Amino acid sequence: MGAFRYQALEVLLRQQIQTGRFKVGEKLPSVRTLCKLHEMSKATVVHALHKLEADQLIYAVPKSGYFVNEANADYNAPQKVSTPSVPALVNVPDIFRDIMSRSAAFDILPTDDPVPVAQHLVTLNRMIGKASRTHPEQKAHYYDEPKGHVGLRQAIADLYRQRETQLTPDDLCITSGCQHALFLALMAACQPGDTVAIESPAFYGVLQQLEQLGLHVIEISSDPNTGIDLQELAEKIQDWPIKACIVTPNFNTPTGARMPIEHIRSLLQLAHQHDFFIIEDDIYGELRFRSELCPPIKNECREGRVILCSSFSKCLSRELRIGWVAGGALHAKIVQLKLITQLASPQAVQEGLAEFIHQGHFKRYVNQYRQQLKEQRDQLLDELKRYWGGQIKFSKPHGGLSCWVELPNQIDTQKSYKLLLEKGIVLTPGVLFSAHGLYKNHMRLSFSQPLTERRRAALHLLFQTLLENQ
Amino acid sequence: MGAFRYQALEVLLRQQIQTGRFKVGEKLPSVRTLCKLHEMSKATVVHALHKLEADQLIYAVPKSGYFVNEANADYNAPQKVSTPSVPALVNVPDIFRDIMSRSAAFDILPTDDPVPVAQHLVTLNRMIGKASRTHPEQKAHYYDEPKGHVGLRQAIADLYRQRETQLTPDDLCITSGCQHALFLALMAACQPGDTVAIESPAFYGVLQQLEQLGLHVIEISSDPNTGIDLQELAEKIQDWPIKACIVTPNFNTPTGARMPIEHIRSLLQLAHQHDFFIIEDDIYGELRFRSELCPPIKNECREGRVILCSSFSKCLSRELRIGWVAGGALHAKIVQLKLITQLASPQAVQEGLAEFIHQGHFKRYVNQYRQQLKEQRDQLLDELKRYWGGQIKFSKPHGGLSCWVELPNQIDTQKSYKLLLEKGIVLTPGVLFSAHGLYKNHMRLSFSQPLTERRRAALHLLFQTLLENQ
Repeated sequence: MGAFRYQALEVLLRQQIQTGRFKVGEKLPSVRTLCKLHEMSKATVVHALHKLEADQLIYAVPKSGYFVNEANADYNAPQKVSTPSVPALVNVPDIFRDIMSRSAAFDILPTDDPVPVAQHLVTLNRMIGKASRTHPEQKAHYYDEPKGHVGLRQAIADLYRQRETQLTPDDLCITSGCQHALFLALMAACQPGDTVAIESPAFYGVLQQLEQLGLHVIEISSDPNTGIDLQELAEKIQDWPIKACIVTPNFNTPTGARMPIEHIRSLLQLAHQHDFFIIEDDIYGELRFRSELCPPIKNECREGRVILCSSFSKCLSRELRIGWVAGGALHAKIVQLKLITQLASPQAVQEGLAEFIHQGHFKRYVNQYRQQLKEQRDQLLDELKRYWGGQIKFSKPHGGLSCWVELPNQIDTQKSYKLLLEKGIVLTPGVLFSAHGLYKNHMRLSFSQPLTERRRAALHLLFQTLLENQ
Repeated sequence: MGAFRYQALEVLLRQQIQTGRFKVGEKLPSVRTLCKLHEMSKATVVHALHKLEADQLIYAVPKSGYFVNEANADYNAPQKVSTPSVPALVNVPDIFRDIMSRSAAFDILPTDDPVPVAQHLVTLNRMIGKASRTHPEQKAHYYDEPKGHVGLRQAIADLYRQRETQLTPDDLCITSGCQHALFLALMAACQPGDTVAIESPAFYGVLQQLEQLGLHVIEISSDPNTGIDLQELAEKIQDWPIKACIVTPNFNTPTGARMPIEHIRSLLQLAHQHDFFIIEDDIYGELRFRSELCPPIKNECREGRVILCSSFSKCLSRELRIGWVAGGALHAKIVQLKLITQLASPQAVQEGLAEFIHQGHFKRYVNQYRQQLKEQRDQLLDELKRYWGGQIKFSKPHGGLSCWVELPNQIDTQKSYKLLLEKGIVLTPGVLFSAHGLYKNHMRLSFSQPLTERRRAALHLLFQTLLENQ
């Protein structure tokens, strides 16, 4: 396709968006209209649109078209941080264990009033209870099959179909949460001493696993909006061949970044060229705030290179401890590893959960939860902008549970951890998200809880402590 | 103490038992009486008694004394098999996966009528259900602490106190079953390439883990009554230093062997001299058929060398997927590994289970279950003796779920696996229990299910197939 031609259209549309010719939320002309209008091929038009999508100016809604994104001018996004060019073994700070024992710190004030009893949890518990009363002696005497309950695997496949992704029950294996799934994926794909590429910043739970498994890590700079820098990845793996790349394409923690489809395809192409596996953490995949479907990377791969890992912990309940893995080419090995590491999963919870999804309760609940999270995100970001907008930068995710905050250079967020903890406030310092001790002046803030008056006060105390202790 | 003096008493008592001066089930004179009678020190008398206990002529009942054991003359125990003298990497046969997917084959006829609904499971489910309705939103939003629910850890410590073993809740970490506990123990104690000693025959679940973790295995011949041969262990580790020794002191699967206290102390002494860890699988520890208390090895060790692993799967329910590990000197590392491999355990099941134990339901149930298992063992062994007593040898365990059967040399039990499976009969071949392909003419038989008419017929068909296909 003509490189100049698609660029001409890209520049034109970019101008029209920036000058307000197309307003926020407005639908762009259809691909067919643009083809006619500019006398271009479909491929050229789609290429231009993908470029604009990658730059977050527009977003795609399946079966509808492209829409103008919210402008990012009203806030400062954190800067992409450059990363070391050589792999290293991970050395996770001691603070990690403490943070994890505080429920992974998705709440800055865990002592605040609990949210009121949610009806969906009552329904879910009822269904699990019913399943546990069905053939209890059978369940007590015989283990579940290693892959997990087939009805639940079907239900999970159904959820992916709603995200335009084809999976069969046989493609899936039930695990004890996403952490367990990621561990099995890493064990299956890598040997001690191998090198793995990760986003930077990256999920600290994975960093711990990499440390334990004796894997070398190469950090790849990542944009708080669009995720992993594929140019940098392509360059680094020239020097340092990798066995796997771990990414969270949809609403990565801590930044909330989402990979544009074009980036996903480039990543797959690199994986193919350099023969590595993609370990995809899809745990936030259901928590989108816009009408995009956010299919997983897995959807784009036909050759079994993607190991999809996820769970119900973030979108439904952390109590279930039910996750899954679709291991692609490594699936049989992963099922075997599940058997070795924990034999089987509990059956009643799987049966009850399958029924919950089957009856449509999951879909109803997650729709409502997305709306709630979006409101909580807006609450949090408004507060950040209003009070500290001049001093800090923060990401604006379109899904997930958290945003990434960059503070002035001289601030070390980890330093205030203990002081704040004495006041019942749990800060999640940026250093947790790097294998090389980057992000000293960053932190993750979650909007998974409503910004109650007490949490608002905690947030103010947190910033006061950080900004005053420079 | 005088070596000759204790031997004199040992010989005397042995004669008195063998000539019927002391009858089966009869109590021997107390230690104090024996001291007076023979003018010996307490240490000398106890030493002689321990020797007789090691030879299974007597058994100890705490706070009561020593009792004469059932004579073993009425059946042929399988022979101890000699093992290779060099460590090797494990290569588990393919059949393993198939067996495991059939619920580990503790039932030769899984299609038989399920046992009637057991009241204790109804009670247990009610308590778990109640716990899941208590603060459901809290449980959905916050992970459990990495070590697990403190009430359940206290309840488990209480169960050990009843076996004269002191553990605190802090000594324990909840896992996803015993398999998970053993995996964490091996990961914490060993590095790839290290050598581990195992009993032979040994639990196949552990063999799989050793294979996956790239550990070398040295098999130690084990007696179907008294377990691992400590003389052989002492000799082999001179040439092949080990990082850990994995044993099931109480009612080892497949043989049902129980280690005498004297052997346990020798093992601990070896561990101390040669600086290795003892990974203790206590999963059958509660399933004793006699009034012995069967404390774990852990009870004898003050220096943190024993990693105790267990679960409720065999003594209460396989559905719970709740196990535990008391990691001794490696405990902090193991808790960290639990966090890495699965983050947290579900909370309601732990709370409900703690309440179930606290209210005395566990104790009541397990007392009744022991009686039931003992009767089922007798049913099975009577059948074996009556029909195939001349052709086979089998162990007679005083606890646990299974016995070990030795068939004539020319029979390969694995060969009949598929043929029998077509008839719905699951045979557990002996090769599964060795890292080196030993035990071709052995199999494990479980008495975890009642010998119904259909199971009896299956057993006859099984032996007919094995003995006719020579």
